[in-house]
Amino acid sequence: AWFHIVFYSLGSQLFPATCYLDLMEFSEPGIFNYSTLLLSEERDALYVGAREAIFELSKKNVTIHSSWPVTEISMNMCTLKGKSKERECLNYIRVLQAVDDTRLYVCGTHAFQPQCDYLYFGNFSLHGKPEDGRGKCSFDPSQSFTTVMADGVLYSGTAYNFLGSEPIISRYSPTQSLLRTEYSTSWLNEPSFVFADVIREGENGADGEDDKIYFFFTEVSVEYEFFGKLFIPRVARVCKGDLGGQRTLQKKWTSFLKAKLVCSMPELNFVFNVVHDVFILKGTDRKDTVIYGVFTSQWGNVGLSAVCAYEIKDVEDVFSKGKYMQKATVEQSHTKWVRYNGITPTPRPGACINNQMRLQNINNSLHLPDKTLQFVKDHPLLEDPILPIHNRPRLITKDVNYTQIVVERVQALDKITYDVIFTGTDKGVLHKSVLVEDEVHIVEEIQLLKNGEPIKNLLLSSETQSLYAGSDVGVVQSPTAFCGRYSSCVDCILARDPYCAWHPTNATCVNIFDTASQTLRGLIQSLKGDANMCPAGRPQHAHTPVYRLQFYKVDNAV
Amino acid sequence: AWFHIVFYSLGSQLFPATCYLDLMEFSEPGIFNYSTLLLSEERDALYVGAREAIFELSKKNVTIHSSWPVTEISMNMCTLKGKSKERECLNYIRVLQAVDDTRLYVCGTHAFQPQCDYLYFGNFSLHGKPEDGRGKCSFDPSQSFTTVMADGVLYSGTAYNFLGSEPIISRYSPTQSLLRTEYSTSWLNEPSFVFADVIREGENGADGEDDKIYFFFTEVSVEYEFFGKLFIPRVARVCKGDLGGQRTLQKKWTSFLKAKLVCSMPELNFVFNVVHDVFILKGTDRKDTVIYGVFTSQWGNVGLSAVCAYEIKDVEDVFSKGKYMQKATVEQSHTKWVRYNGITPTPRPGACINNQMRLQNINNSLHLPDKTLQFVKDHPLLEDPILPIHNRPRLITKDVNYTQIVVERVQALDKITYDVIFTGTDKGVLHKSVLVEDEVHIVEEIQLLKNGEPIKNLLLSSETQSLYAGSDVGVVQSPTAFCGRYSSCVDCILARDPYCAWHPTNATCVNIFDTASQTLRGLIQSLKGDANMCPAGRPQHAHTPVYRLQFYKVDNAV
Repeated sequence: AWFHIVFYSLGSQLFPATCYLDLMEFSEPGIFNYSTLLLSEERDALYVGAREAIFELSKKNVTIHSSWPVTEISMNMCTLKGKSKERECLNYIRVLQAVDDTRLYVCGTHAFQPQCDYLYFGNFSLHGKPEDGRGKCSFDPSQSFTTVMADGVLYSGTAYNFLGSEPIISRYSPTQSLLRTEYSTSWLNEPSFVFADVIREGENGADGEDDKIYFFFTEVSVEYEFFGKLFIPRVARVCKGDLGGQRTLQKKWTSFLKAKLVCSMPELNFVFNVVHDVFILKGTDRKDTVIYGVFTSQWGNVGLSAVCAYEIKDVEDVFSKGKYMQKATVEQSHTKWVRYNGITPTPRPGACINNQMRLQNINNSLHLPDKTLQFVKDHPLLEDPILPIHNRPRLITKDVNYTQIVVERVQALDKITYDVIFTGTDKGVLHKSVLVEDEVHIVEEIQLLKNGEPIKNLLLSSETQSLYAGSDVGVVQSPTAFCGRYSSCVDCILARDPYCAWHPTNATCVNIFDTASQTLRGLIQSLKGDANMCPAGRPQHAHTPVYRLQFYKVDNAV
Repeated sequence: AWFHIVFYSLGSQLFPATCYLDLMEFSEPGIFNYSTLLLSEERDALYVGAREAIFELSKKNVTIHSSWPVTEISMNMCTLKGKSKERECLNYIRVLQAVDDTRLYVCGTHAFQPQCDYLYFGNFSLHGKPEDGRGKCSFDPSQSFTTVMADGVLYSGTAYNFLGSEPIISRYSPTQSLLRTEYSTSWLNEPSFVFADVIREGENGADGEDDKIYFFFTEVSVEYEFFGKLFIPRVARVCKGDLGGQRTLQKKWTSFLKAKLVCSMPELNFVFNVVHDVFILKGTDRKDTVIYGVFTSQWGNVGLSAVCAYEIKDVEDVFSKGKYMQKATVEQSHTKWVRYNGITPTPRPGACINNQMRLQNINNSLHLPDKTLQFVKDHPLLEDPILPIHNRPRLITKDVNYTQIVVERVQALDKITYDVIFTGTDKGVLHKSVLVEDEVHIVEEIQLLKNGEPIKNLLLSSETQSLYAGSDVGVVQSPTAFCGRYSSCVDCILARDPYCAWHPTNATCVNIFDTASQTLRGLIQSLKGDANMCPAGRPQHAHTPVYRLQFYKVDNAV
């Protein structure tokens, strides 16, 4: 069940010595690996996939629970293959996707024999007719994995075999056969999948373009050569309406293309070449969509994490206009990837079906000419990289390893919208940062998970103004802001938190998004940290430092 | 003049609170950049090359000084070319080499017009007939540079032009024309030279082999491809008797070959790919010669330094038997370096003249066939890397950047010889480490330079049992050991310092290499730190920690 956990601040410049933060934690005895989270704003619930268990947590603190253990046969086969009974041969729920108003689609690793089933909201129980989960869910609970559902269709980045050696990006729908990637190192080379999401074209989609599914992962480079394995962060894209090819690329993506994500400090020759998580901040206007990623470097133990942000237009331009790379043979036995300078077939290989193609009677991917298909089969990698906004990281932080990121775009009292970046670390810490005039400031640092476990999953609900963090031992819910903790106007202003403003009459720091605050007048807020806006007669700080707040847990209270 | 500087220990586990270390510092008012050092054991003196000045410092604390300012014409030309009058257009002494009993060969940058001259010991003054220093000394005082003299002949690794863009490894002797490297990125690609030394074949040199000059540098890789420039530490080798080729490679090295130095932790995929300094520890037996290098990684601000050591045999094997690399053209416009698998011409390209060649009437490099010369011109890079002893660094240290290294091999009381490694940092700190049974322990850490300047040069004199460290502001002399500081037997033993032993009768920790110690009997020493060897009745430490001692300066005393 949910229970309260209380943190107090320590060594903070801002907070009084005993200052309590009220967080909520959920865990059930004997249940571990709360790593899959799904928010349903319609059903007012958080769904949690854990080891052999699925939970529905409602706002009213009602918990419903459904368990899904592995069968004895599966367990025996798994242990016979040398996997551990206590850890690996269990059923780790890794897919939780809402199909319609009545059910969820649920997949688990199921003792290295992935299975999927439907979970009905009504009695919160499984349909009991498990389907083969190969290509939809990973075999190995420790292997990287990502999934997204769009229009009732499941897209997964995972491995297709027991050994985990055959990577796959697949599409599964009950009415179609599995569509998948070609099994080739040119397409996917030891990828670690971190995120997938759909980006819609919208009503006024240019030229009748299709919706696209983006996959984010780190893979081993083929185009560079290094002392050892060189990792490269990538984004790959497929089109929603892809049906595969007629002869070439049968039941394979005809629209699979990938490009390099750049997150580096060129002036220091320092490269953040491992992506750990991605969040797509979808703007109200499509062009305002920004892709945020957290990166570290493969050169171990550096303790530097970076947040890079990419404009959706820059990503789309690379996919729609970028040059292709091709594999060339050197001295019979070596290969080298170089820019393809020949003539590209038309329609453009890897492009989604659009109005222009329809005019040429190409109404779906089955109509694409073999020449185009053969080309994209051999040239899935684009040469042009995707550069971050301003060609540099938005944030670089020392001595942390970010594992998760979510971003909320909020409008402050100055009517300007600010991107608020929440990053979780492998030590259970949460950083809150705000983008003000192209500069990112960390405004808050809290110890979200009490024992310093890694944050495995992070979700944000704008409706409940909450963050949900999943870990191996439980789920923690935290408000997105702690305005009430600032007891003076100066502290409230210097926090530079777009959620918080000072109410001079009540002398409190309030969350401007709380219903109670909507009617308040004369609120004071300054994202630039101008404490001179505060009423006179109170002590003013001379400078505007970036406050980092550290909280530690002291006590539990039910 | 020399003056005493006194350090006291702070926060040390071993030393009492007020414990003084007596070091000697030399500097002259108005003189900077004491970066070139030459020890002459015969003349009992240390020669120091600084900015526009050369010093002879004798043991008797007699300082002789010779100044070498730039001429007005040179200064004017230099400033006209946009260089700064106060910093760049001065004469930085970068070459100090003993020619014979009567004179030194001295070169300076001389306002970006390098010049060389002879300095006579007699009146300690320059001959006054400066020669062109191009190819012997760098133009730019801030550019990397190395030099070594063997049998009166000067070998330099430097740049041959004003811009510093044309790297060169050259040989200069008054009786021959300059022998040099081909100007090609295959030969040298933006090198940073760090060290050069000669390794003699000795009397029983196998097969009538020639002596060899080794150059150590970091350069930009041609064989790997990376996001940006990938640095590679290299060792290059030339033969002393090389005369260049007859038609091909006229007045160029016919024996220039280079190979990659590996210093990495393969299990962590972490590569130390920048070499900062090298020291060749010459064994009494030639095969005991070990090459020590200090390395960092190009992936900035990691704060990890490594010491790697290489057997001379492993280096020689790569040069004498290693496979060559060749440049292959890909798709007309790209190149890739791959292993050369074709037939290698004979004699082996890049090999020194030996008895076998002499039997074929090849008595010097002028007789080498064009086929061999053309091959080495196109294939200067060997594919086989030079791996460190035990295929891992001997020492990895956090939060320091080592800039200099010297190593002394000493015989302890157990009759075993130990390599004692002295490494200097960019913050003026000196680490002393001891190799005991393939493990390296840091036994001492002292703040050698008072204001934390980088150690630019480090020399060791076994005769005076001293280290000499050059920096921008002066030269510091330090004993190689501070045994007298250990006041108890346990402390003396736990220091694990092969220089120090406990004398039970006098109850002092003595330096076993001091003349006074040679007659002492019953000395106690344990490089394994076995404090049980100490006389009973005294407190024994339960464990054998590695002590790190930190000293800070408090006062000067003349």
